[in-house]
Amino acid sequence: MDNNILVLGIAGGTGSGKTTLMEKLIEQFSGMVTVLSHDDYYRRRDELTYEERCLINYDEPAALETDLMAIHLDKLRRGETIECPVYDFTQHNRSNKTKTIVPKQVIIVEGILIFEDQPLRELMDIRIFVDTDADVRLCRRIKRDVEERGRTLESVLNQYQQTVKPMHEKYVEPSKKYAHIIVPEGGKNRVALDMITGRIQRHLEELCATKV
Amino acid sequence: MDNNILVLGIAGGTGSGKTTLMEKLIEQFSGMVTVLSHDDYYRRRDELTYEERCLINYDEPAALETDLMAIHLDKLRRGETIECPVYDFTQHNRSNKTKTIVPKQVIIVEGILIFEDQPLRELMDIRIFVDTDADVRLCRRIKRDVEERGRTLESVLNQYQQTVKPMHEKYVEPSKKYAHIIVPEGGKNRVALDMITGRIQRHLEELCATKV
Repeated sequence: MDNNILVLGIAGGTGSGKTTLMEKLIEQFSGMVTVLSHDDYYRRRDELTYEERCLINYDEPAALETDLMAIHLDKLRRGETIECPVYDFTQHNRSNKTKTIVPKQVIIVEGILIFEDQPLRELMDIRIFVDTDADVRLCRRIKRDVEERGRTLESVLNQYQQTVKPMHEKYVEPSKKYAHIIVPEGGKNRVALDMITGRIQRHLEELCATKV
Repeated sequence: MDNNILVLGIAGGTGSGKTTLMEKLIEQFSGMVTVLSHDDYYRRRDELTYEERCLINYDEPAALETDLMAIHLDKLRRGETIECPVYDFTQHNRSNKTKTIVPKQVIIVEGILIFEDQPLRELMDIRIFVDTDADVRLCRRIKRDVEERGRTLESVLNQYQQTVKPMHEKYVEPSKKYAHIIVPEGGKNRVALDMITGRIQRHLEELCATKV
């Protein structure tokens, strides 16, 4: 732990419940948590047309600029402010905007592939993998993409079978072995949530004790 | 949690590292932890000859008197002392002795099959499954049984293939889904150990605060 900042990584497949877990942590420690999302680091692909960008496999590590994210996380750990890229999902490309992220006592790094990259995962003090059965995850993804994002059922299922599932099995599932703890069902798992919040609480208390 | 007693269940396959994890917890909280082992509840089989008892499958749930263990755990949770059976591994049978177990602030329940039985697992506040690759577990088991218990390599490998592996896949692995947290590599996983000890510490501090 550098500079009294605790870095938690939260990984897990699509629909695993990692967002729910993260939201509960943010709610409980509001104002003391900074989030860094792997999704913000999708690569700039100005050299491709919109149609070409639509065909990219966004579920494989090569789609993400993970080395930049590792540099940013390292800076945050050292107490520096960073300018995080802003991705434009409507254009399937990085925008020209950035957002300022300031380091706080706790940094949560989240994404399905964050444990896959060694330099990135070594910057995390606690690696949590949220593990949920593939069928349950698919149910949640359909619900989210069809109901909340207005996509057709057919496109969701096609994408799931063509890239989401094979990439999960190739990259996400094997990266589970780098987790320190595996949490079945994510944010709905009250006992695990309680252990994680207890760990963060202890970190914050130790910080207070150091200051006094 | 009844009577201010925290019950932790530690399960996982043979050689997973659950004993190491348990020993580290006992070491850290010496005098405040009671252990209840599923192995002590192997059934009394007076009706069988020694030769017949040698042939029993000891890796399936039927070999254990789990309902008695659940009654005992329930009593311990309520603050009552119990008389735990003592198993005689040289005779493959329960002995006529018992050992007195007194409840303490923390009870650790351990065994490969403790999550498989619903009444038993529902008596646990925190269920921890220690998860280690099958080949690593086999290496450890060979080492333990051949070097420490003086068994032949052939008998260890035969038992592993005939009962240990199939029963693991049938009963132990599926019971992982009842865990609140899954700990890869058990006692060697310092980050997970730290979260678990933190949780126990908090329980003990809350008990102190209640008493004051």
